[in-house]
Amino acid sequence: MQETRLDSARIRAARQVIDPMFLDTPLYRCDALEADLGCAVSIKLETANPVRSFKARGTEVVASLLADNGSRAVVCASAGNLGQALAWSGRGRGIDVTVVASRHATAAKLDRIRALGATLELVDGDHEPARERAAAIARHDGIRLVEDSLDIETCEGAATIGLELADALPSFDTVLIALGGGALATGVGHVLKALAPEVEVICVQPLGAPAMTYSWRERRVVVTEFANTIADGVAGRRPIPAVLDDLLLVADDTILVQESSIVAGMRMLLHRAGLVVEPSAALGIAALLEDRERFSGRHVVTIVCGSNVDVDAYHRWVGAEGGGAPRSSP
Amino acid sequence: MQETRLDSARIRAARQVIDPMFLDTPLYRCDALEADLGCAVSIKLETANPVRSFKARGTEVVASLLADNGSRAVVCASAGNLGQALAWSGRGRGIDVTVVASRHATAAKLDRIRALGATLELVDGDHEPARERAAAIARHDGIRLVEDSLDIETCEGAATIGLELADALPSFDTVLIALGGGALATGVGHVLKALAPEVEVICVQPLGAPAMTYSWRERRVVVTEFANTIADGVAGRRPIPAVLDDLLLVADDTILVQESSIVAGMRMLLHRAGLVVEPSAALGIAALLEDRERFSGRHVVTIVCGSNVDVDAYHRWVGAEGGGAPRSSP
Repeated sequence: MQETRLDSARIRAARQVIDPMFLDTPLYRCDALEADLGCAVSIKLETANPVRSFKARGTEVVASLLADNGSRAVVCASAGNLGQALAWSGRGRGIDVTVVASRHATAAKLDRIRALGATLELVDGDHEPARERAAAIARHDGIRLVEDSLDIETCEGAATIGLELADALPSFDTVLIALGGGALATGVGHVLKALAPEVEVICVQPLGAPAMTYSWRERRVVVTEFANTIADGVAGRRPIPAVLDDLLLVADDTILVQESSIVAGMRMLLHRAGLVVEPSAALGIAALLEDRERFSGRHVVTIVCGSNVDVDAYHRWVGAEGGGAPRSSP
Repeated sequence: MQETRLDSARIRAARQVIDPMFLDTPLYRCDALEADLGCAVSIKLETANPVRSFKARGTEVVASLLADNGSRAVVCASAGNLGQALAWSGRGRGIDVTVVASRHATAAKLDRIRALGATLELVDGDHEPARERAAAIARHDGIRLVEDSLDIETCEGAATIGLELADALPSFDTVLIALGGGALATGVGHVLKALAPEVEVICVQPLGAPAMTYSWRERRVVVTEFANTIADGVAGRRPIPAVLDDLLLVADDTILVQESSIVAGMRMLLHRAGLVVEPSAALGIAALLEDRERFSGRHVVTIVCGSNVDVDAYHRWVGAEGGGAPRSSP
């Protein structure tokens, strides 16, 4: 295949600098989901760690490089999970971390960023002004800006999940990956296309935040005016051209799902699998729910990528049958 | 120390026959719990696997031996988790599994036992009549009876958790272990006393099902007339003498906790750690909640040993502040 920006040797090397706590995460068949979904489902669980998402795989690589270079500060924009992970990785290495987030971000994520000792700056609007503000801070302070999905460490850190999936082959046919900025999808996709090209790489995005999917389908960057989804972790509007280029090389398809399916997926993962997940982490199950025929009889892996939720919202989503209207994003 | 029935070489060998899916489970610091508890807390997570409890570590050893001997059938009594695990381990090896359970057992556990293809026989009363009935089936059919905590494989399978904890040393001071029949406590305790005698081994049992704790304190078997706790996985009334003997050698203390603390622990693990746990798996946090002073400043590991809950009961326990009256056991 044509080459992505990612490098397989660097991805293998990344395993050496990532705290082992974040590696070799559980991967297991979840029979209890299968009667409802009509296909074999395995869970790759990225939530059983101190930051409750896969993002530390990338921030460990970033922070390790910064520490090696003697850098003492770093800044990022984040919907919450990257910021929390960077705060964790920075704290252990004596690096000052600043996180810029929308003031409408999930409160539990913001609380954890503060609790981990990072400086948190809140901005109006959605994730895009936060990205601009983080870039301004980096320029002003002369410190490293970590840009999720653009910075190769964030993709190659996430790509270590792909190595773990490839090790488990030939047990599955398809992997379902939450699609936001694209670090997870291009990372895992790169490794699977290199090591297991027969595995179908399918990205899943909310219908309410479809910018990257539209871009992938039209093979050019499509910016959307709004994002309107409960899946805060993937609610971007401005795909990054270089990431789109990589995604075009590694994704076999991208699927858009409805908010009600995301809620149904969260509820199913709680009730059938005993897993608390944030909306982004239910995208794979949502895709299975919306098109049982497509996946019938196949063995699908879904990456459960995060579990950081506001308790009240979570109870509202999973507490009752039906319901689950989308929240308006600003 | 005096010798328990367990053998360290066999415990190491057990790792070779247990499906790797059940080994090397997540072990991680959970900062988000610490502000409330006043001590460092690490989670050893035994729920991210196909049977959502640690019990498969033991049943994998049992089923592997049966398969090696050409045995085609096995029976056990179970509150649900052992039966589910034995059903899983037997299914993969072509062994017919019969499980005897109380008809008052957690419905979700019984459903999973059936779904895994085991024969389920329900009996009146609590766990003790189920044990008698399972023994009768074994005698009548001439098949192996698996007795949880008495059979050395169930203890040595659980003991593999101890190996994983010992590998993580010297990071913690104390391990909190749910105490029921005693397989988990004697297994993990044996390994830690052998490899890390400086680690405090503390068992936790519900005040409503205190038979083994009373027995440990009096150094003789104490049978209780009733068990009255939501922690169905540890609700035994008749400690097994040989298991008590082992427990006396490896446990530094046993603690009894109230039902309201178990519910508070479940709620805290959901809200702060994003973990669904069954009541038995919240016993460690319950102990921390009841005696902050004792554990102040220490680094405690709690083994989150299972997550099989009935959805409605779970929502009732964790859904609202306060509440959580104990359910009467028959």
